Amino acid sequence: MGVEFLDIIDLDDARGIMADLFRELYSRCSETVNIDDAVGRVLAEDVESPIDLPPFDRASRDGYAVVASDTFGAGDEKPVRLRCIETVEAGSLPSRRVESGSCTRISTGAPVPEGADAVVMVEYTEVSGEDVYIHRPAYPSQHIAAAGSDIGAGSVLVGGGKVLSPDKIAALSAAGVTSVRVVSRPSVHVISTGNELIEPSGRLEPAKIFDSNSLGISAALRDAGCSVSRGGIVRDDYDELRRGLIEGLGKADLVITSGGTSAGAGDVLADVLEDLGEVVIHGISMKPGKPTIVGVVDGKMVVGLPGFPVAALLVFRSLVEPFLRELSGIKAPEGSVKTLKLAERFHSSRGRVQYALVRVDGQYARPIFKDSGAIAALAGADGYIEVPKNVEILNEGEEVEVVLFENR
Amino acid sequence: MGVEFLDIIDLDDARGIMADLFRELYSRCSETVNIDDAVGRVLAEDVESPIDLPPFDRASRDGYAVVASDTFGAGDEKPVRLRCIETVEAGSLPSRRVESGSCTRISTGAPVPEGADAVVMVEYTEVSGEDVYIHRPAYPSQHIAAAGSDIGAGSVLVGGGKVLSPDKIAALSAAGVTSVRVVSRPSVHVISTGNELIEPSGRLEPAKIFDSNSLGISAALRDAGCSVSRGGIVRDDYDELRRGLIEGLGKADLVITSGGTSAGAGDVLADVLEDLGEVVIHGISMKPGKPTIVGVVDGKMVVGLPGFPVAALLVFRSLVEPFLRELSGIKAPEGSVKTLKLAERFHSSRGRVQYALVRVDGQYARPIFKDSGAIAALAGADGYIEVPKNVEILNEGEEVEVVLFENR
Repeated sequence: MGVEFLDIIDLDDARGIMADLFRELYSRCSETVNIDDAVGRVLAEDVESPIDLPPFDRASRDGYAVVASDTFGAGDEKPVRLRCIETVEAGSLPSRRVESGSCTRISTGAPVPEGADAVVMVEYTEVSGEDVYIHRPAYPSQHIAAAGSDIGAGSVLVGGGKVLSPDKIAALSAAGVTSVRVVSRPSVHVISTGNELIEPSGRLEPAKIFDSNSLGISAALRDAGCSVSRGGIVRDDYDELRRGLIEGLGKADLVITSGGTSAGAGDVLADVLEDLGEVVIHGISMKPGKPTIVGVVDGKMVVGLPGFPVAALLVFRSLVEPFLRELSGIKAPEGSVKTLKLAERFHSSRGRVQYALVRVDGQYARPIFKDSGAIAALAGADGYIEVPKNVEILNEGEEVEVVLFENR
Repeated sequence: MGVEFLDIIDLDDARGIMADLFRELYSRCSETVNIDDAVGRVLAEDVESPIDLPPFDRASRDGYAVVASDTFGAGDEKPVRLRCIETVEAGSLPSRRVESGSCTRISTGAPVPEGADAVVMVEYTEVSGEDVYIHRPAYPSQHIAAAGSDIGAGSVLVGGGKVLSPDKIAALSAAGVTSVRVVSRPSVHVISTGNELIEPSGRLEPAKIFDSNSLGISAALRDAGCSVSRGGIVRDDYDELRRGLIEGLGKADLVITSGGTSAGAGDVLADVLEDLGEVVIHGISMKPGKPTIVGVVDGKMVVGLPGFPVAALLVFRSLVEPFLRELSGIKAPEGSVKTLKLAERFHSSRGRVQYALVRVDGQYARPIFKDSGAIAALAGADGYIEVPKNVEILNEGEEVEVVLFENR
C-alpha cells in the first residue's frame, strides 16, 4: 500500500558508505590566504620561519651592555666602574664598539653593540656622571637573546594541521609571514525543495510555510568550515530540480538539498539522481531522518535531507557534518559533547537509532517530546542525544552524551 | 636605582579594579542585524514568533484526510470505504470540504481540508478506483498539527541571551523572522607601540622586529566577540602616542596598546594617560605582565599590554578578555579549559601569579620553559596554565587547568 520505495539501511552502514564516498570522491585541497584572513583556518603545511628570531643579538633587559669579564668580582662593596659611551634604545643601532672598561646603556629589545657579551640589569648599576658602577658580576651571554636563538631561519615555526588561533597568528607575524597555505573550505551548494516553501523575507501565502533549512543548514555548514552557495527554493518538479542540481554541481563540491523526500515528492529527487548519476543511500533506519537520500553525480555527492527542520539539522549533524569537518580540518570544539544525566525516562524504538532534542538544566538533560516538525522544540533545545538502535528505554538519571548546539 | 615607577598590585586586586571599571564605564548595547549575519551573535531580547506555527492545520503524515467518526470500527477485516474527492499536495490549497463518507488524499505538510479532523496514514489504506478503503480507526486530531499548536503568534520563540547557533537561525527563519536585535560587539582600537617595530608586510631593517601584537591581539579580540579597528604602529613618542590614543578613543569603546611599557618607554604611555585622564593600574604582580598599565580617559578604558608577544597575549587573556566577553555575551566555549596532569615539575615564584605556556601531550601538559620574548614557544604551545601566587612548586603528575588556545 505504501508509496515510498525506500531501501532502509542501518545508520552505521550509512555512515560506512559515507566514509567510503568521502574517501573516494574528496581530498583536502589547499589555498594561499593573507594572514589577516587566516584566523581559524587550518594550516595545510609546515611554515618555516623566513628569518632568524630574534633577528639580531638582542638585550632582554634594560641595563648596560658590558664585556662580561670586566664585571667578574663586582659586588655592592666593590662595584666596577665603566665608562658609558652611548645609549641604544630599541629600534636603534649602536654606533660604537664596547671595549673593556666601557659599556653602553641599552634598552630591552635593542641590539647589543659589538664587543659586549652581557647585559647587567639597570637595578644593579649606579650612574655617576659619564660613568656607571656595576654592582653584580655578569656571565657571558647574560640577558642577551642571540640572533636565531629563538628560532633559526628555515626551521619549522608552526606545523601543518595546526588551527591558526590568535597566538599562532602572532607567532607567524613575528616572523614576517604574511600569507599562508591553509586547507581549502569544501564548497557546498544548498537547495531547499518544496512547493510549500516561501523565502523567510517573503509574504506568507495560504498553504505555504517559510523555508528555514536554507539558512539553518548554511549556518551549520559554515560552522563546519565549508563555504556555502545558496540555490534558494526549488519546486518539487523533475526539470526544476534537475536544473537546480546541475547548477549546484557546477559550482560546488557537494550539493545538499532538503525537503521533497516524503512520498511522491521524494521520488523526484531519487529519479533525478538515478538519471544524472546513481542513488547510493535511499532510506536510513533513524528517527528522524528515515527518508534521507544520498547520490553521486559526476564524482560529486548529493545529500537529500528530510524537509522538517529538526530532521534536516539532525541528519546533517550526525551523518554529514563529521565528514565535512574531516575535509575542512575544522574539528568540533572540545566540550561540544557533554555527559549529563537524563532528567526523565525516555522511550525509544528498538531497531532504529533515535535522536531527541534536549534542554540542558544544570547537570541534567531534559528530552523535549515533540515531532520533528516542531519549531518551538528546536528553538528551545540546547542540544540532542543519540539513542542507539538496541536501546528501548533510557532511565531517569542515566548518563547520556549531549551534543550541544551552542558550543560549535 | 630603578627607572620604573610601577605601583605593583596583586592580580586579584587588578581583576577587581577591572571588574569595577567595566561595570562603571560600559554596558551592553544592542543593534539590529539581518538574520543571515546573525549566526554566532547573542540575542539581545526575546524574539516572539510573528506568526502561528504551523500557519494552518497541517497534515503530519502522507495519507487521507477524513472525518474521524467515519473510521471508528474500521479494521483489516472490516475496512471503511470512503470516496476520495481531491488530492492536496504540500503548498496547495484544498478546494473541497470533506463531508462524512468522503476523504481527501493529502501529503505531509499540506493544509487539512475543512470538515476533516484526522489523517489516516497511507500505509493503512487501499485504493479502489475513486474510493479508498480505510483499515484503521483514527481519533479526532490524529496526524494533524493544528494552526498555532507548535507556537502561537506573539509567543516567545527564542529567549534573549541565547547564542544564535544554526538551529536557532533555522527556528527564527521558520517563523519568518528576518532581522534580530543582537548584543553589539564592543569596539576596540588596537595600537602597537615601539620604535623597533615594522609591519609584518614590510622589509626588516637592522635593529627592527616585526610587529606581531597588532594581528595577534586583534584576532583574540574578534574571538571574544569584539569589533576591531587597527591603529598600526606608533613610535615611543609622547605626541605620537597621544595622537594615536585620541584617534582610538574617538573610534572605539576601549583602546589596547602593546609595548612601550618597559622602562623609559613605558613612562610615555603613563604620562599621556595621566595628562589625558588617569592611570588606574600601573604594574601587576604577575609573570609575564608586570608592567601592564590601565588608564581611563573620558570614560573609556585604555589598556597598555607589555610588548613581548607572549606577555601581551597572556595578559590580554587573563585580565581583559573575560570582561570583554561579558560585554559581548560571547562566552568562552565549554572545553576551552581542560584538566590535565603536569608532565614535569614546574617552579614558580612565590608572591606573584605566574603563567606558563604548555604543550598538550595526551592527558599531560608539558610546560615550555622560555622567556616571554620567545616566539617559538608561542608557536609550539597548545595553551597555558596559571600558577597561583602562593604556589612555588607544581609537582610532576599534579593536576593543572590548561586554557587551550585552539578551542576558542
